[in-house]
Amino acid sequence: MKLIKFGKPGQEKPGVIINEKRYDVSHLVKDYDENFFSGDAIENLKAEINTQNLPEISLDERLGSPLARPSKIICVGLNYKDHAAETNAPIPQEPILFFKATTAIVGPNDDLIIPKNSTKTDWEVELGIVIGKKASYISEENALEHVAGYVLHNDYSERAFQLERNGQWVKGKSCDTFAPIGPFIATPDEIEDVHNLRLWLKVNGQMLQNGNTSNLIFNIPFLISYISQFMTLLPGDVISTGTPAGVGLGQKPEPWYLKPGDVVELGIDGLGSSAQKVKAYDE
Amino acid sequence: MKLIKFGKPGQEKPGVIINEKRYDVSHLVKDYDENFFSGDAIENLKAEINTQNLPEISLDERLGSPLARPSKIICVGLNYKDHAAETNAPIPQEPILFFKATTAIVGPNDDLIIPKNSTKTDWEVELGIVIGKKASYISEENALEHVAGYVLHNDYSERAFQLERNGQWVKGKSCDTFAPIGPFIATPDEIEDVHNLRLWLKVNGQMLQNGNTSNLIFNIPFLISYISQFMTLLPGDVISTGTPAGVGLGQKPEPWYLKPGDVVELGIDGLGSSAQKVKAYDE
Repeated sequence: MKLIKFGKPGQEKPGVIINEKRYDVSHLVKDYDENFFSGDAIENLKAEINTQNLPEISLDERLGSPLARPSKIICVGLNYKDHAAETNAPIPQEPILFFKATTAIVGPNDDLIIPKNSTKTDWEVELGIVIGKKASYISEENALEHVAGYVLHNDYSERAFQLERNGQWVKGKSCDTFAPIGPFIATPDEIEDVHNLRLWLKVNGQMLQNGNTSNLIFNIPFLISYISQFMTLLPGDVISTGTPAGVGLGQKPEPWYLKPGDVVELGIDGLGSSAQKVKAYDE
Repeated sequence: MKLIKFGKPGQEKPGVIINEKRYDVSHLVKDYDENFFSGDAIENLKAEINTQNLPEISLDERLGSPLARPSKIICVGLNYKDHAAETNAPIPQEPILFFKATTAIVGPNDDLIIPKNSTKTDWEVELGIVIGKKASYISEENALEHVAGYVLHNDYSERAFQLERNGQWVKGKSCDTFAPIGPFIATPDEIEDVHNLRLWLKVNGQMLQNGNTSNLIFNIPFLISYISQFMTLLPGDVISTGTPAGVGLGQKPEPWYLKPGDVVELGIDGLGSSAQKVKAYDE
């Protein structure tokens, strides 16, 4: 199943995609939130949509993030060898974790707003895991039972805020619009092998990131198990699993960054694609 | 006004403290959450409780955290000179920010559970700011308009997870029970001078932290303005402003940490006190 939310910002309703068409399920589901992901709601929804004539939604409707504001977005740093190399960072011995503010979440095709005083706004295509079951001290063996689905995420990053403003990356990861999520959450049955998905990102049509989740340093069961040793994951929480090489910071001969007017497009096999227009902050 | 929540974990109801007595206001307020803090609800509640005979609550009732799960807890690192000195860290040139998972929040007198595999669970008494109004790119001059109140917070920290497990402090700050908040939120009119409050913490009766908010390196208007340059603060969000000297990591001749059976007590002038019993993780 593919879960979407559609409508104006702040007024999005839940829907589903079936055979490339979009349908409204707001009469069946209140929101794709902690309550939805924690119970049998996904299975119930699957059963119900097979028996109903659902109202179709125009493909012109704006998509929002396909999930309600989660309790947290946990990001994994430097989880592809080629990305660690391009940023001159050593291969991590264990996962680097950081948080991204949930206030950064926007729809998959909403504008990216360059923050005030930013000079180094950068892109990062990432595979996101949506948690489906409360997880604390989970083993690797049981980790995938805790997954509700997978989702495309652009982990926008302001490199000067992240790296040059006195410690801890959160400052460069949490600006408004820095977390376009979607177009849809794919339930695990939609994805044949989550560790063999191509992920790519273009700026103004130029392919800059072109990786594959087969190159993850720490794979998905390991990450879920690892993170759950340090904190409790709640249904609806998002783990963003890291980005492959090709970010602005890693460009040769010199890093370069986004400017107003640029267009960023990205996608992952089986998880669709998204596009953000880059705009300046409007006072 | 002093806001509390009382009742069993997960079933807490809103209340208020008036003249040391506790009253139920659950017929007037659904929760102390984003919706409550963003509007005129505090003023309305003040007006209403003056005209009503409120049901009194027993002082034996458990207190929960006085706020609903916020979108984020933003913590400020090394914001007292004596604490920076004891941890051999330089005085920050600008605030160090990190996040703490909101799943760490518990009531003020709930048990502190030492996480599995922890050897260095440490304490940090801190003044918390509760945001009362959405804040993005706020000036220092206007910052205090965005405060709903102040609250006592113990920013428990696992120093090995924080400092010895490959970068980014969030791993050592986010374990369950690591954020006892309360007993109550004091609205700003309750506090004469927020920059002149004594804060203290004892372990097993021994006074270990004994500071004053007059020694904050970055004061409250500055912190709100600063953080709002990097992310949007939502009503109900908590900023934890840093801890004075006297944590376990700073003990001489050698650091020492909490063990099962210990009792941690802490307080801040005008914001009450809390106490946590230390327990081992129970498989």
